[in-house]
Amino acid sequence: MADLTTSSRLEAFSDAIIAVAATLLVIDLKLPPEKAEQGLWAFLADQVPTFAAYVTSFFTILIFWINHHTLFRSVRQVDRAALFLNGALLLSISFISYATSILGTALASGRQDRQAAVFYGAVLLLSSSCFTLLWRHLVSTPKLLLKNSRADVSGALRRSAIGPILYFLACGVALLSPRFSLLLDIAIAGHYAVLPRRTEVGSRP
Amino acid sequence: MADLTTSSRLEAFSDAIIAVAATLLVIDLKLPPEKAEQGLWAFLADQVPTFAAYVTSFFTILIFWINHHTLFRSVRQVDRAALFLNGALLLSISFISYATSILGTALASGRQDRQAAVFYGAVLLLSSSCFTLLWRHLVSTPKLLLKNSRADVSGALRRSAIGPILYFLACGVALLSPRFSLLLDIAIAGHYAVLPRRTEVGSRP
Amino acid sequence: MADLTTSSRLEAFSDAIIAVAATLLVIDLKLPPEKAEQGLWAFLADQVPTFAAYVTSFFTILIFWINHHTLFRSVRQVDRAALFLNGALLLSISFISYATSILGTALASGRQDRQAAVFYGAVLLLSSSCFTLLWRHLVSTPKLLLKNSRADVSGALRRSAIGPILYFLACGVALLSPRFSLLLDIAIAGHYAVLPRRTEVGSRP
Amino acid sequence: MADLTTSSRLEAFSDAIIAVAATLLVIDLKLPPEKAEQGLWAFLADQVPTFAAYVTSFFTILIFWINHHTLFRSVRQVDRAALFLNGALLLSISFISYATSILGTALASGRQDRQAAVFYGAVLLLSSSCFTLLWRHLVSTPKLLLKNSRADVSGALRRSAIGPILYFLACGVALLSPRFSLLLDIAIAGHYAVLPRRTEVGSRP
Repeated sequence: MADLTTSSRLEAFSDAIIAVAATLLVIDLKLPPEKAEQGLWAFLADQVPTFAAYVTSFFTILIFWINHHTLFRSVRQVDRAALFLNGALLLSISFISYATSILGTALASGRQDRQAAVFYGAVLLLSSSCFTLLWRHLVSTPKLLLKNSRADVSGALRRSAIGPILYFLACGVALLSPRFSLLLDIAIAGHYAVLPRRTEVGSRP
Repeated sequence: MADLTTSSRLEAFSDAIIAVAATLLVIDLKLPPEKAEQGLWAFLADQVPTFAAYVTSFFTILIFWINHHTLFRSVRQVDRAALFLNGALLLSISFISYATSILGTALASGRQDRQAAVFYGAVLLLSSSCFTLLWRHLVSTPKLLLKNSRADVSGALRRSAIGPILYFLACGVALLSPRFSLLLDIAIAGHYAVLPRRTEVGSRP
Repeated sequence: MADLTTSSRLEAFSDAIIAVAATLLVIDLKLPPEKAEQGLWAFLADQVPTFAAYVTSFFTILIFWINHHTLFRSVRQVDRAALFLNGALLLSISFISYATSILGTALASGRQDRQAAVFYGAVLLLSSSCFTLLWRHLVSTPKLLLKNSRADVSGALRRSAIGPILYFLACGVALLSPRFSLLLDIAIAGHYAVLPRRTEVGSRP
Repeated sequence: MADLTTSSRLEAFSDAIIAVAATLLVIDLKLPPEKAEQGLWAFLADQVPTFAAYVTSFFTILIFWINHHTLFRSVRQVDRAALFLNGALLLSISFISYATSILGTALASGRQDRQAAVFYGAVLLLSSSCFTLLWRHLVSTPKLLLKNSRADVSGALRRSAIGPILYFLACGVALLSPRFSLLLDIAIAGHYAVLPRRTEVGSRP
C-alpha cells in the first residue's frame, strides 16, 4: 500500500500543464517576414492551413482536458502506475504543439506535408493511447475508484478505447490527403466532446 | 440531460489559459539587434507603438477575465454549447497575442499598418462576439443559471452585446488611422472595466 | 457601491500571472550559436552577467509575489481603482522579463550597458511604484480591508513606500556602474524578503 | 516569530512554476529548417537525442513535483530560510529547460556533448541539492512540521540526501559517455518516482 496518493492535487497539476500546453500553441504561429514583399492579407491567406492546425490542436487539447477532468471525478486515489501513465499523457499533450508547428509549416509550404500529417496523427494517437491505458488501469484497480462510479467509468472506457483506432485511421488517410486527415482529426476531437452521462449530477452550492 | 457539468472547474481552467495568454504577450516584444547602430533609448523610442499594442492587449485580456469571472459567478452548470462557446472564447483570447505582435511590428515600421490594425480589431471583435454568444446562451438557458441571478445577467448581456459593434467600428477607424483605432480599442476595454452591479455582494469569510 | 468585488479570485489570477512571468525568464537566456568557435565552458562564462540578471529578476518577482500575497491577506474586497492598480502591477511584473533580457545582453557584450541597467532599474521602479500605490489605495479605503488588519497594513505601507526611492537610487548608480546597480537591485529585493510580522498567525488545519 | 507563514499558498505557487517549467521544455525542440534538404523522417531521426533529453527533463521535473508535494503535506508553516531554499529550488527547476536545450543540441550534433552532459547533470545536482537542503531545514525545525509527521519526513530525507551524490556520479559518467549519463539521469528520476510510504493515507471525501 506504499504507493497510493490522493488525486485532487494531481488533477490541479495536470490542469496547469494542459492549460499552458494549449496556450503555448500560439507561439509557433509565423509572423510576416520583416521585409515582406506581399501584403498582410496575402500573407495571412497563405497561413490558413497553419491556423487550421492551430485550431485543431487547441480544441483537441481542450477536449483531452474535459475528458481527463471527467475521468478523475471518479478517482479516489492514484498509484505509481497511474502517476506514470498520467505523466506520459501530459508529456504527449505538451508535445502536440511541436507536431502542430511542423504540420502547419508543411501544409502552408506543401513540402513534406504527407509525412507531417502522419507525424501529427501519430502524436495524437500516442496521447489517445496514454489516455486509454490510464483509464483501463484505473478501471481494473477498483480501490482507486470512488464507490458506485465503476459502471460509469467502464462505459466511458469502451468509448475511449476507440480513440487510438480512429487516430490510426487518420494517419493512414494522411498518406493520401494531409488536409483531409486534419479534418478527420478535428472530427475525432468533436466526437469526444460529447460529454459522458455522469457529468450531469454536480451543482454548485 | 447528459450534457451538463459544473462550472467551477471550467472556470479555473479558463483562468489559467487567460493568465498565460496575458503573460505570453511579452515574448513578442522585440529586443535590440545584436549589432545595433542606434543607442538603446533610440531603439526603445522606436518601439513605443509596440509597447502601446502590448499594453492595450494586456488590459483587454485582463478585462475579458474580469467579465468572464463575473459572468460565471451566476452560472450553476454548463452544457455542451457553453463548453464549445467558452472554448472558442479562450481560443480567440489566446490568439490576441499573435495579432498584437503583427500590429506592433506594423505600427513601428509604418508598413501594412492599416491592415494590421484592421486584423487586430477583427480578432478583438471575434473574442467579443464569442463572449456575447456565450452570455446569450447562458441567459437563454435558465437551468444553467443560479437562482435569482437571471435579472443581473440579462442586464449585463445588454451591455456585452454592444462590444462587437464597438470593435467593428474600431476596424473601420483602422482604415483611416491605425493609431487612433488602437486608442479606441483601449477605450472599449476601459468601458468594460466598469464592473456590473452584482459584484458588490461577495465578502471573504 | 457598484464597484466592489471579492479579492480571493483576483489573488489566484495574480498568482498565475506572477508565476508564469517568473518562469518565462528562462526563455530569454541565450543558447550557444550553432557553429560555436569557443567551447561550452567559455560560452557559459561569457553568459555569467546574463545569469546574474536572470537570478535577480527571478528573486525580485518571487518577492513581489510574497508581498502581494501578504498584502491581500488583509483585503476583504477590491474596487475599480484597486483592480486597475493591480492590473498595472501585473503588467509591469510581466514586463520585467523584457528588461532582463536587454540588461543581460548588454552586460555580456558591454555595449549600452549603462542605459540597459537604467532601463532595468526603471522597470523595477515602475513595479515598486504600482505596488506602493495599490497598497496606499487599500489602506486609505477602510471598507476594503478586513477588520483589525489596518494597523499591520499601515506599518507595512511605510516600508513599501521606500521601495521606489531605493530603485530610483539604483537607476542613478547604474549610470556609474551597471554591475553594481544589479547588486543593489538584488539587495533591495532581499530587503523586502523580510516578511512583515502579520504572517506568523496562519496555520493549516 | 516574525517570519512564519502558512505553506498552502506557497505550495500552489510552486506548483504553478513547476508546471510551467515542464511545459516550456517543448519550446526548445528544433523545427525542420525552412529549406530542408532531407525528408521529415530523416530530420526527426536526427532529433532523437534531443527528444531523449526532453523526455528525461519532463519526467525529472514531474518527479520533483511529486516529491515537493509529498514533502509539503507534512509542513505546517514556512520561515524565511524555507522560503529562500524553496525559491532557489524553483529557480533551479526553471533552469532545467536551458540545460536541456544545450544538451539536446550537443547530443544531436556531437559537438561539445561531454561538456553539455556535465552541465546538464550539474543543473540536476543543483536542483537536487536545493531540495535536500530544504528538506533538511524543515526536518531540523520541528515547529514547521505537522505533528506526528516527523518520523516520515526524516526517513524520506535520508533517501533525498542520496540524490546529489547520484547526480554527481552522473556528471562523472558524462565525461566518458554523454548518452549513458542521460540514461543514468532518467534512472535517478525513476528511483525517486517510488512514492514514500506516507502518501497512502489520503482519500477524497
